Amino acid sequence: MSRLVMKFGGTSVADLDRIRNAAGKVAREVANGHEVIVVVSAMSGKTNELVALVEATSPMFDAREYDAVVSSGENVTAGLMALTLQEMDIPARSWQGWQVPLKTTSAHSAARITEIPTDNLDAKFAEGMKVAVIAGFQGIAEDGRITTLGRGGSDTTAVAFAAAFDAERCDIYTDVDGVYTTDPRITDKARRLDRISYEEMLELASLGAKVLQTRSVELAMRYKVRLRVLSSFEDVTENSGTLVCSEEEIMESNVVSGVAYSRDEAKMTLVSVADRPGIAAAIFTPLAEAGVNVDMIVQNISEEGRTDMTFSCPVGQVARAEAALNAAQERGEINFRGLIADRDVCKVSVVGIGMRSHAGVAAQMFQALAAEGVNIKVITTSEIKVSVLVDRKYMELAVQALHDTFGLENAA
Amino acid sequence: MSRLVMKFGGTSVADLDRIRNAAGKVAREVANGHEVIVVVSAMSGKTNELVALVEATSPMFDAREYDAVVSSGENVTAGLMALTLQEMDIPARSWQGWQVPLKTTSAHSAARITEIPTDNLDAKFAEGMKVAVIAGFQGIAEDGRITTLGRGGSDTTAVAFAAAFDAERCDIYTDVDGVYTTDPRITDKARRLDRISYEEMLELASLGAKVLQTRSVELAMRYKVRLRVLSSFEDVTENSGTLVCSEEEIMESNVVSGVAYSRDEAKMTLVSVADRPGIAAAIFTPLAEAGVNVDMIVQNISEEGRTDMTFSCPVGQVARAEAALNAAQERGEINFRGLIADRDVCKVSVVGIGMRSHAGVAAQMFQALAAEGVNIKVITTSEIKVSVLVDRKYMELAVQALHDTFGLENAA
Repeated sequence: MSRLVMKFGGTSVADLDRIRNAAGKVAREVANGHEVIVVVSAMSGKTNELVALVEATSPMFDAREYDAVVSSGENVTAGLMALTLQEMDIPARSWQGWQVPLKTTSAHSAARITEIPTDNLDAKFAEGMKVAVIAGFQGIAEDGRITTLGRGGSDTTAVAFAAAFDAERCDIYTDVDGVYTTDPRITDKARRLDRISYEEMLELASLGAKVLQTRSVELAMRYKVRLRVLSSFEDVTENSGTLVCSEEEIMESNVVSGVAYSRDEAKMTLVSVADRPGIAAAIFTPLAEAGVNVDMIVQNISEEGRTDMTFSCPVGQVARAEAALNAAQERGEINFRGLIADRDVCKVSVVGIGMRSHAGVAAQMFQALAAEGVNIKVITTSEIKVSVLVDRKYMELAVQALHDTFGLENAA
Repeated sequence: MSRLVMKFGGTSVADLDRIRNAAGKVAREVANGHEVIVVVSAMSGKTNELVALVEATSPMFDAREYDAVVSSGENVTAGLMALTLQEMDIPARSWQGWQVPLKTTSAHSAARITEIPTDNLDAKFAEGMKVAVIAGFQGIAEDGRITTLGRGGSDTTAVAFAAAFDAERCDIYTDVDGVYTTDPRITDKARRLDRISYEEMLELASLGAKVLQTRSVELAMRYKVRLRVLSSFEDVTENSGTLVCSEEEIMESNVVSGVAYSRDEAKMTLVSVADRPGIAAAIFTPLAEAGVNVDMIVQNISEEGRTDMTFSCPVGQVARAEAALNAAQERGEINFRGLIADRDVCKVSVVGIGMRSHAGVAAQMFQALAAEGVNIKVITTSEIKVSVLVDRKYMELAVQALHDTFGLENAA
């Protein structure tokens, strides 16, 4: 019998009505002849409530106890979902992480999945269970302690189960109906994509499109799990949502699949740094130690023996970055003449797997921006992505221009 | 090192301030040189919230899923208590039922404890853990499913741990400061008892004094666990609360230790029942099947070959009792001439282990009630208890008169 994994996030199980609605979607797949593994998050708001209790109790909390407390939200939803399915006469059973057992590393609050034995669930499926409801986000370490998987943990749980049980597909039900060519709030020409490759999805996720966590997409790509993103609040058909899959499943790749943006960026420039081997390490090590998430990095030769170094980071981390760099200067580890922070920039990116076989995408992008009078401040490229920093005030304009120039409104 | 079990109920851990207050009491016992096992209930209100979610989801719920959902409240408190203790620099760790593991029967929602292996906790104590915080009310069945222990489950958990770990004492922290000679709301002469025997406590509990659940007292008696009931909201000294212990630990037993009452009783009389062997079974079997909690039973011979049968039950069950008896009459299983229900009675009882060696307690009781003009409707006695049914309007008067006549105000 074919297996399907269905994952419902917090807003999809926010109250009993929504749990019933989600259970209806599960019932439909059971009627279609599937054995289903359902992965649930905590009811929305519950995890934050528990985190607040832990933080109020102990600011420097023990991560083992944090995990024991915070994982309880998913346990409640799993039980309620199993009961709801039973009310619909569907043989269902809930499973907490330790019952499966979903084995993880002991890195509490950020554990990685090491193994999902299939024998317990397989035995129950063989006895007639139609749906196993799994409490997402949690597992068990070798010492018997509860672990949690960190941000996006339930998506990762779902993908890992799909891989372990060789599921036909992993459907991620959420509050949007798929992956779009760009943010529909920026342009009403944004269009839902039927399919997108793992690689493109990874770039879009890391660029700020919040549909799926990067980590779950990476896992799906590694194990070739077909992921479908779709809405909990609409009727489901064969063509609902967006399928995230291998490039081979996408007949005609678009040159550009989407335009992403990240609003709150800052650009920092170290002016006239004494250039020597190891200078980049001398700059970026203290930044990493200070917890600054450096994104783009560009180096220009300015004069003999000296160089300008530019990087971007979230605007909220500028003060921390300045402190770290000034401290390194005082310790004599680096030697710059000036430090300039531009807090009013944003990042706009085009992503597309077709770029690999299509020259000229970057040039077409720069022309489109120039035509709108948008000045480009920093450029970086990867195999399937071109990103630029521009003044924040041009963000919407830039996204709209790029969406138009690459014909995304009409893409297949 | 001596071991102590401390149990905190829902009102004692109702919010973070109260958890901190409770942790302070634990810290004091650690400072006194104890290794401590703390058993916690869910924060007050939480279990009811979870039960309501389950019942709204599925009126005829699967008890296995009920247990999985409802047990999560205790998990949260256990983690928060461990964190609070860690903040006080006390090495503490939380344990859910399955982690101990606290093994139970598979009677979900009313499971009985079968075994508490001590090796896991002993190993951690040996490593330097000072406090093990146990999520009360829950265990694990042989098939790996979560169970709950039913009403009073956390008290029972605490006593079972005290027995398994050979604890010096099991302290039950609650919202009253001990066991009283009678309800202080009825007479301000009520006095806290320093000590009370298991047997007396059992009688008081079953008579409606709500301090401890009958089941946990039974378990304490069987394993000779010294139980102390005391308030979470007062400073603790050596003499706080009431110690529930073996008779041998009580130097000078009082003839009567307490006066208990139960307000909402009904007295039912089957008039002129055809008397034959098996008639009592014919009457009380259908009542039991209808879920009527029959308490006192009295049989009088009224005329040749016929008898009057009187019993008491909670006033809310009268309609159900009438229906069951009339149905049995129609089926020809019994043959009575009339069925009289008196809904306005209450039960008043005196309890005392000294009664066994002291004749005349019942007579003294009846004289005291007669002196106040209180008519006695039904009497039953056991080795350490005399109970009477009287009109409900005399309840306070009867309790006060008995409290006076047995000198409880001044008892040691």
